Amino acid sequence: MKTELLTILRETDGYVSGQSLCEKFGVSRTAVWKGIRQLKEAGYEIEAVQNKGYRLVSVPDLLSEYELKSIRKTEWAGQEICCYPVVDSTNTRAQQLAEDGYPDGTLVVAEQQDAGKGRRGRGWESPRGSGIFMTLLLKPGISPANASMLTLVAALAVSAAVTEQTGQPAGIKWPNDIVMNGKKICGILTEMSAQFDYINHVVIGIGINVHNESFPEEISHMATSLFLETKRRFHRAALIESVLERFEHYYAVFQKTEDLGALVREYDARLVNMHQNVRVLDPKEPFDGKAMGITPRGELIVDTWESRRLVSAGEVSVRGVYGYV
Amino acid sequence: MKTELLTILRETDGYVSGQSLCEKFGVSRTAVWKGIRQLKEAGYEIEAVQNKGYRLVSVPDLLSEYELKSIRKTEWAGQEICCYPVVDSTNTRAQQLAEDGYPDGTLVVAEQQDAGKGRRGRGWESPRGSGIFMTLLLKPGISPANASMLTLVAALAVSAAVTEQTGQPAGIKWPNDIVMNGKKICGILTEMSAQFDYINHVVIGIGINVHNESFPEEISHMATSLFLETKRRFHRAALIESVLERFEHYYAVFQKTEDLGALVREYDARLVNMHQNVRVLDPKEPFDGKAMGITPRGELIVDTWESRRLVSAGEVSVRGVYGYV
Repeated sequence: MKTELLTILRETDGYVSGQSLCEKFGVSRTAVWKGIRQLKEAGYEIEAVQNKGYRLVSVPDLLSEYELKSIRKTEWAGQEICCYPVVDSTNTRAQQLAEDGYPDGTLVVAEQQDAGKGRRGRGWESPRGSGIFMTLLLKPGISPANASMLTLVAALAVSAAVTEQTGQPAGIKWPNDIVMNGKKICGILTEMSAQFDYINHVVIGIGINVHNESFPEEISHMATSLFLETKRRFHRAALIESVLERFEHYYAVFQKTEDLGALVREYDARLVNMHQNVRVLDPKEPFDGKAMGITPRGELIVDTWESRRLVSAGEVSVRGVYGYV
Repeated sequence: MKTELLTILRETDGYVSGQSLCEKFGVSRTAVWKGIRQLKEAGYEIEAVQNKGYRLVSVPDLLSEYELKSIRKTEWAGQEICCYPVVDSTNTRAQQLAEDGYPDGTLVVAEQQDAGKGRRGRGWESPRGSGIFMTLLLKPGISPANASMLTLVAALAVSAAVTEQTGQPAGIKWPNDIVMNGKKICGILTEMSAQFDYINHVVIGIGINVHNESFPEEISHMATSLFLETKRRFHRAALIESVLERFEHYYAVFQKTEDLGALVREYDARLVNMHQNVRVLDPKEPFDGKAMGITPRGELIVDTWESRRLVSAGEVSVRGVYGYV
């Protein structure tokens, strides 16, 4: 009942009478009172006024199923939500849930990861309560050869959501890092289980640094958090909801053609490398050039002094000739 | 000690004295006698003659770690072996072992699968003791885009191993079914877990129908077993070992260029569709043509009356215009 109570309290501008809650849910006053008490214990500030009813004053920065569901506006993303205080890795957990039959759109959220995964077997710092550690499970009916583009779809969603929620531009460092003022605030790790012509499932892990007040010295030159960049605190559930809504939007566009054709302009507009000098760290032969945006397949277009080259996401790293981005 | 005992008994043409076994292993006569007894209990026929020693007379058709290890000649495939009486699916089990850190080359074998997996979410009939249900775990340092070719490498290995062991040609129906006299004796299911530029692991599941004396009516027109085709019984461990040895060989060739360039001729020689009329079941527009072999990327070359077309493995099904193959 906590989800429903919260939903009504949130939707109501003013007081909700205990009587109307009883009628709505077909339960006793005691049951309503008990639900309200549980919410208060969880950190929700709820004012109770004689003859008026209940009013939601403030909400805690809580990642619970009922908090997420009470603000949910998505159609399929996050219809199933699994929240954990601690997991090894939200991607690993989501993969297990996929094997157990959890549906397309299942969302996994954790307050802390003990073995958060980064790219190529590296780790991802995931201290308790500091950020968003979420994974979206997809079972897309697309070709495995097109699945790598999903990570760019996710980058678009996070860039748009963070920009909207914070009011500060959060750009994309190709292919899928999200940066603010030149430092990374979000990493995305897409993993796929596939037969050679058939996707079993895809998990898109998104780690956003929200409340971190500092970073270990070895990464502090390139990592930052929303708090460090804005000096403000953000409600993580609202940010997650915003990411999911935007992911649904971009994913629907992607699915029409199974490529990024209709998203290239927006991606390029968010691309911090755009028209910047970049060094392409091709293991065979690194080269410098100017980034000119992406192709409909998600490749980075790099103009060198002699030719135009296309760089496949993941084959190589790209960095700005000056500094991190 | 069973592995070592068996290895010596196998290697010896004649009798091995109890005394030499004691010295070899540095154990007592009782310990040797105990090991021999355990092997006898498992079904090995071992003759014991006063003053001569032990002689291996016959071996059971057993899929145990020590049986497989005692005949092993591979370099890396099957260095780690996990045998089970029953599993849900050897592919699923191998994927779990991969997550738990089991190495490249780990072999999973089961006497029975409760939920054997076929292509595209279909099942695979896996009754107890009837066949080979094995999965080879790989952690290849290749691009995910090239992983689908591994399933053709596996098809080559099985085709060669079955042909060698049975003395009857077992051809390949593109891309990766193994057929004898026009009916399927083996299916291969390759699954991959990958980041978009990095393979976590690949599992290659191989199911070979060995002892089956009949099949359910709905598949009996297209499925067969080694027993049904040859009226002979085969030793499954020897067949597994042969598959692994040949896989090692073809895999080494594949890895040099990360494609099938150097294997095209041999693959085409084993291809039952070669120079046959085929129907390509392209969901958009099926078409007929003549199969002309594969490309170095594993695509099937199909000549229609107006043009040459390349068919990607997995995108479509291909069947002979007449009958199953």
